[in-house]
Order: sequence, then C-alpha cells, then structure tokens
Amino acid sequence: MSSPLPTSMRVVDHGAGGAPDCMKIAQAALPVASDDEVLIRVAAAGVNRPDILQRSGKYPPPAGASPYMGLEVAGEIVAVGSAVAQWKVGDTVCALTPGGGYTEYCTAPAGHCLPIPTGLSVVEAAALPETFFTVWANVFERARFAPGESILIHGGSSGIGSTTIQLGKVFGAGKIIVTCGDQAKIDYALKLGADVGINYRTQDFVEETKAATDGRGADVVLDMVGAPYFQKNIAACATEGRITQIAFQQGAKAELNMVELMMRRLTWTGSTLRARPKSAKTAIANALLANVWPKFATHLDGLRPHVHAKFALADIAQAHQMMEAGTHFGKIVLVV
Amino acid sequence: MSSPLPTSMRVVDHGAGGAPDCMKIAQAALPVASDDEVLIRVAAAGVNRPDILQRSGKYPPPAGASPYMGLEVAGEIVAVGSAVAQWKVGDTVCALTPGGGYTEYCTAPAGHCLPIPTGLSVVEAAALPETFFTVWANVFERARFAPGESILIHGGSSGIGSTTIQLGKVFGAGKIIVTCGDQAKIDYALKLGADVGINYRTQDFVEETKAATDGRGADVVLDMVGAPYFQKNIAACATEGRITQIAFQQGAKAELNMVELMMRRLTWTGSTLRARPKSAKTAIANALLANVWPKFATHLDGLRPHVHAKFALADIAQAHQMMEAGTHFGKIVLVV
Repeated sequence: MSSPLPTSMRVVDHGAGGAPDCMKIAQAALPVASDDEVLIRVAAAGVNRPDILQRSGKYPPPAGASPYMGLEVAGEIVAVGSAVAQWKVGDTVCALTPGGGYTEYCTAPAGHCLPIPTGLSVVEAAALPETFFTVWANVFERARFAPGESILIHGGSSGIGSTTIQLGKVFGAGKIIVTCGDQAKIDYALKLGADVGINYRTQDFVEETKAATDGRGADVVLDMVGAPYFQKNIAACATEGRITQIAFQQGAKAELNMVELMMRRLTWTGSTLRARPKSAKTAIANALLANVWPKFATHLDGLRPHVHAKFALADIAQAHQMMEAGTHFGKIVLVV
Repeated sequence: MSSPLPTSMRVVDHGAGGAPDCMKIAQAALPVASDDEVLIRVAAAGVNRPDILQRSGKYPPPAGASPYMGLEVAGEIVAVGSAVAQWKVGDTVCALTPGGGYTEYCTAPAGHCLPIPTGLSVVEAAALPETFFTVWANVFERARFAPGESILIHGGSSGIGSTTIQLGKVFGAGKIIVTCGDQAKIDYALKLGADVGINYRTQDFVEETKAATDGRGADVVLDMVGAPYFQKNIAACATEGRITQIAFQQGAKAELNMVELMMRRLTWTGSTLRARPKSAKTAIANALLANVWPKFATHLDGLRPHVHAKFALADIAQAHQMMEAGTHFGKIVLVV
C-alpha cells in the first residue's frame, strides 16, 4: 500500500481574480477522488491560455470543478475511487483535469488519464493532454483531417499550433501551413515540421495558402483568432474544406458573406474541450490511446512536446506573464 | 431495335432571358448521347427554382450543358452511349439532367438515371430527381441526419420541403418542424408528415423549435432563406446540431456572432447540386438506389411526390408564373 497522504497541500490561489500578482501560494485540504476518479500527486502541470482567463475572472470553472487553475497534470496515482479498474496506486499518468492542476494533489476522472508515453519525462507528459485532446477532437474528429490533406494552422508556434504541426506530420499531412507573427516563430514551426510559414503581419495568408497548394486552398483550417479571420478562412479553404474554431481571441462577431460556404461545400465547426461531458472526454482519451499513443513508439522525436520554460509553483506569476506576452514557443510547464 | 428518331424536336427557348413571356417553343436538333450518356424521350420534366434564375439570365448553365432549362425528366431511353452498360433502349427512367429537360429529347449521364419506382406514374417520377438528390446529399450525407433526430425545415411546402418531410418521416425522424408563410401551407406540411408547423410571419421559429423539442433545439436545420435566418438558425440548433444551406433566397451577407457555433459544437455546411462533378452525382444516385428506392416498396404513399400542377410545354410561362408567385404546394411538372 502507499505511504500515508499529507492532510494539506500547497495550491495556487487566485482569490477573486485579477492581474498575475493576484496569485498566492496557499494551503488547502487534499481533494478526494470520487468513485470514478483517481488522485494524482502532481509532478508537473501544464499552463494554458484558459488559465489566464480563469485567473482574471473571465472564465469561471464549471460547476463541481476545483476552484484552482490547471487543466492538465502528470504524476503518480496515490488513490483510486471504488469504481476505477484500469489504474492502481503507483501508476504514473498524464491527465486532463477539470481544473485543480496548480496544486500538489489533483483529482481526475480515471477515463481522462493516459499512460506516460515511453521516452517522455513527466514534465513533457504534463504538456500533452490539453493540446492533444483539443487537436484530436477538433482537427481529426470534427474536421475529419485525412492523410494527404493540407492544413492551415493559425498560431503555429503556440502549444496547440505545435501539436497540430506534429500530429499533422506524423499522420501524413500534405502541406502543413502555419501563420505566425514573426520570423523566429516561423523558424520554430518549420523546425517542428511545418512546410510553409506565413508572417501574418506582412503577408496575406489567403494568397500564401493558395500559392502553397497549387491554388486549391487548405483542406482543414484550425483557427483560434476569430472575427478578423472568418472571411479569410473561408477564402483560404479548398472545395470541401473544413474550418474548426477552438477560440475567438479577437472576437466572434463579423459581417460575413456565406456564399462560398455553400458553393464550395465548406464545413464550419468548432468546439471547446472544457465544457464537454466526462464521457466525451473519455472517448477522446480512448481515441488518443488507440490512434496516437502507439505513434510515440515509432515517432518519439516527432511527437515530443517542446517545453519552452519550466517554473516552480511559487513562480506562477512569471509563467502567466510569459504566456500573456506571447513570446513563448510551445508549452509552459509548472514543476511541482 | 427502336423506331427511327425524328431529326428535330420542340424545345422551350428563353433566348437572351427575361420575364416568363421571353420563353417560346422553338425547333432544335436532337442532342446526341455521348459515350457515358443516354438519350431520353421526355414524357415529363420537373420545374425547379433554378430554372427561373436561368430564364432570367442570372444562372447560366455550366459549360457543355444544354442551353435549355430543365434539371430533371422522366421518360423512355431511346439511345445509349457506347460505354453504357446498365441501361438499354426501351427502359423507362427518371434522371437528373445537366439542363435540357424542357424539350422532347434530353441526354443525361447514365449514372444519373434511376428506375421509375413501382407504383409511381411517369409524371410523378419526373418530380423526384432534383429534390431527392438535393435532400439526400444535404440532409442525409452532409448534415448526417440520423433516426430519432429532430429537423427544422424552412420552406416546408416547397418541393424540397415536401421531400424532406417525407424522407424524414420514412427514416424515423424525431420531431419534423417546418416553417411556412400561411396556414394552408402549414396544413399541407402537416398532412405530409410534419409534426409542428410554424408560421414565420407571426411566430418566432427559434422559440417554437425549442418548445417543440423540450428546449433542445433541432439536430438538423435545412435552410434556403439565407441572411435573415443565419443567426436564428444557429440559435435554433441543438448542441451538436448541423445547419445545411442549399440556397440564399434572401441574401448571403449578415453580421454574425459565431460564439454558439463553437460553444455548442454546431456544424454549418451546404452545397449546390448543379455545380458538382458527374461522379459526385452518380454517387448520390447510387446512394438513393441503395437506401431510398427500396423504401418505395414499403412506404409508397409516404414517398409519393405531390404534383401540384401539370402544364403542357407550350404553357411553360404559366408554370413559371405559378412558381414565382410561390402559391404552389409541392412540385410543378411539364407534361411533354
């Protein structure tokens, strides 16, 4: 059996929310795994953009979720709920969490845990769930990306962008085209496997996407920018192209002409991960385990997440400042 | 062998286009079936809304198509191209045509012909292809309508609307909800199998659709109205709902807020039939033959097209005036 658990733990508490300096280290009681959950001793936790929104008070956690930030962790299972059959105390996993990752102990539904792929560190593994669940669900499931197809990825150097480049490459994408805000980010994306980098500040991504695809356009467009890109995303699509929307960082309202959606048989869809029911996330985890996890054995270097910076729990403000500055490449991880 | 064909035929010629009175009966040479086509002696031809656009000069036929109007016919095959194996002279068929239906002899790709379902007259059969191809491709294929799902059908008393009601019913729709402009049209739609009729002039279709679905909204929305309905269609969708756009009768441009598309994981798509390549239409014909044609044997009355009015070729102006007035229920057919 495992050694006794402490009675309290350190957490990042953002109180009523605000700027990065609103975050303090506080003590809290350990959460308790319910029947279908596991309790994980957090070794590392990924930092994601929704954490920034939650911290500033704009994205309250769903009912029943931990009040603390943190949507993904990796570490050792230290307790399992009564209905959990697939995991045991002592297993090391990475997990998508319903919040609560910025702590020393975090619960997660057993179905949202995945084994740490052989060859990855626990810090690297903590950087996987949020982007892998999001990209799989949106690009591979909703947008039905298929081998040989071209994909236009906005925010090519973000965590989501990096993962999409890597998964696109491993799954045989035709052209992988990314937009970034400067040449250093473009170079980073090209190094990860992108074929074409577009500087959105100086180039027209519709023209460049068409030029890169013999005039056809992209079969799949992954967007998180929103309103100013809506009409351009439609124009950048190939006939039968699919646009998948995972955020609206620059708004969701625009004047649109939808003729091309019908005439060229496009599909516009999207989803957010956090709002989905537990069963949907379990289904994504199962799909990742079946389709993507085996690829780590054959394509480890192509799928290794790029951890741009690691911070201790106490330095969380710096981690958030880095993410807000947008100067990072790939993932930011807290080492607990 | 067949009796010799005449050297010329009567056609409806709309000249340079214009109001209904621009159409005259003229003589023209018979078209010749190319290798993969059949020549049909037209017994009846469906009248469709795109014909009105073509007549007025706004919707020129695709390159290589007949200059004459008419997108669907039924009749007897009188000649077959050298590569046609599945049909022979003397077979009676209904067919989707690339134009040229408003004539005595019309060619169609062999793959776009279907047998006349047992129990239907040739006039009824001429009313099938355009709506059955369109509804199958958009509602069943693109929007992935599944048994038990609810569907909101705009223009419930149109040819497309009627067919969608009938196919929805036969394929086990949950709630079939239609919008119409008056009570007589609503009554007609209810008689065809709709569960709920909404008068769009006096009722809010978003509220009524939610009321009819225990607040969930419609799983599939079939729209041809366009701009003024875009935002409302999004609001009327259930989570994971799909909107399929087959026309923009009131425009394609609107100011839109797309938040709900992402938050509730909607899909917005659409297509036009005429622009698609021959192979795509053949695939739809094959899907209809496999999935829908067998239903005529078991659900003949539920699938029988409602022919609102029949006109002789010489009375084509009256047929177009009726369609433009929008007072018809179901289909208008020319009897050649």
